[in-house]
Amino acid sequence: MTYCVGLLVDTGLVLLSDSRTNAGVDQISTFRKMAVFQRPDERVLVLLSAGNLAITQAAVNILHQGGAGDEAGVPPIHRAANMFEAARVVGDALREVHQRDAAFLKDQGHEFNGTFILGGQIKGEEPRLFHVYSAGNFVESSIDTPYFQMGESKYGKPIIDRVIRRSSSLAQAAKCALVSMDSTIRSNLSVGPPLDLAIVRRDEYRLATHISIDLENEYFHMIRTRWGQALQEVFSELPNPNW
Amino acid sequence: MTYCVGLLVDTGLVLLSDSRTNAGVDQISTFRKMAVFQRPDERVLVLLSAGNLAITQAAVNILHQGGAGDEAGVPPIHRAANMFEAARVVGDALREVHQRDAAFLKDQGHEFNGTFILGGQIKGEEPRLFHVYSAGNFVESSIDTPYFQMGESKYGKPIIDRVIRRSSSLAQAAKCALVSMDSTIRSNLSVGPPLDLAIVRRDEYRLATHISIDLENEYFHMIRTRWGQALQEVFSELPNPNW
Repeated sequence: MTYCVGLLVDTGLVLLSDSRTNAGVDQISTFRKMAVFQRPDERVLVLLSAGNLAITQAAVNILHQGGAGDEAGVPPIHRAANMFEAARVVGDALREVHQRDAAFLKDQGHEFNGTFILGGQIKGEEPRLFHVYSAGNFVESSIDTPYFQMGESKYGKPIIDRVIRRSSSLAQAAKCALVSMDSTIRSNLSVGPPLDLAIVRRDEYRLATHISIDLENEYFHMIRTRWGQALQEVFSELPNPNW
Repeated sequence: MTYCVGLLVDTGLVLLSDSRTNAGVDQISTFRKMAVFQRPDERVLVLLSAGNLAITQAAVNILHQGGAGDEAGVPPIHRAANMFEAARVVGDALREVHQRDAAFLKDQGHEFNGTFILGGQIKGEEPRLFHVYSAGNFVESSIDTPYFQMGESKYGKPIIDRVIRRSSSLAQAAKCALVSMDSTIRSNLSVGPPLDLAIVRRDEYRLATHISIDLENEYFHMIRTRWGQALQEVFSELPNPNW
């Protein structure tokens, strides 16, 4: 399985993905699920993928291919005028894979399942965050729901619901994404490190941070240890019922 | 949907269920999902149900019916010699419903989906906790996993994994069940109050507590407010990353 989360706050975006892929518990592998499309000083886009790895890898490969016409060799996602167009380009890539593969998958009893979280900023716009579905259609995050999750999303949802607002800082958003990931990893074997974390600061048009985090990472280790301890402390401090 | 949880600790059992039943978001109703079978000073059993309400209600009705033979009129669950036998009786009731209804459900495209958590104590044994599946088979909780959940279980799983051991007190277990329920209710519309909470104290052979909890319940209100606040405080106290 997978857990990916993208958070949009006033000052930018945080995107976090795990790297565990499995086809049954005895076939677990590590694959990166984050792709970055960057044109310095002009655009930065981060794509997180979930679902059938063959489908999402094929779509990402298509996205990296140059287009035709005036800017031959420049991938369409680098030419999209805005994030809405970019989300369409991602949807189109999925549809191209669908056209090629879906019938064969269906023949063998597999659903066509590949989804993306797309976050980023293109000059002239605010940072924006989208969720692209298997059918190539998509939704955009709103002020009320400034985040999207994919994969094993339920374990790590309560903490996001409780602490993240559009006014949260990027540091808070990164911390929250990691706490949310920690809760997921602890409760679900199919989600695992290393993690890929990307931070996009508003109006910088490049990745502010792009790191790989394993269990030895000092900050994540601190989160894992102290969050667990603090939860247990808070839990013990809550009065017991008198029934 | 549903959220039910049963926790087994050294000193007894805590069982908690919500009461929301839905067939699509525009048809939401309140139904109790907890049934109690008690013979004072001899046995107490609590049954939580999830899945298709028609199936679980039918099974519970069968369980309340008297059997034949020597003890005509006494339901077989009251005659089971131990909790293993009682779990079999629950499985048999499900199988009786399956025999009557499954083909008709299948005809209309519905799966046969009804599951139970069964917790309790019968004189001569320790308290025990079982999870009975739709097929009528079942598993028993172990020292490593002293709890079972049904329904929308993922939101409320991390807190149980972090704080509950077999050595936890009954009060801690009740508090944890309510915190777990609160996280679920906040993140999932299909789970809702009133809640039914039952506490079984070891060797008492009757319910120590059996209360209905709504949002106005003083203790649950305290849990909801203070747990959320405390989480936010703990979250702010965790150092931010310096990336």
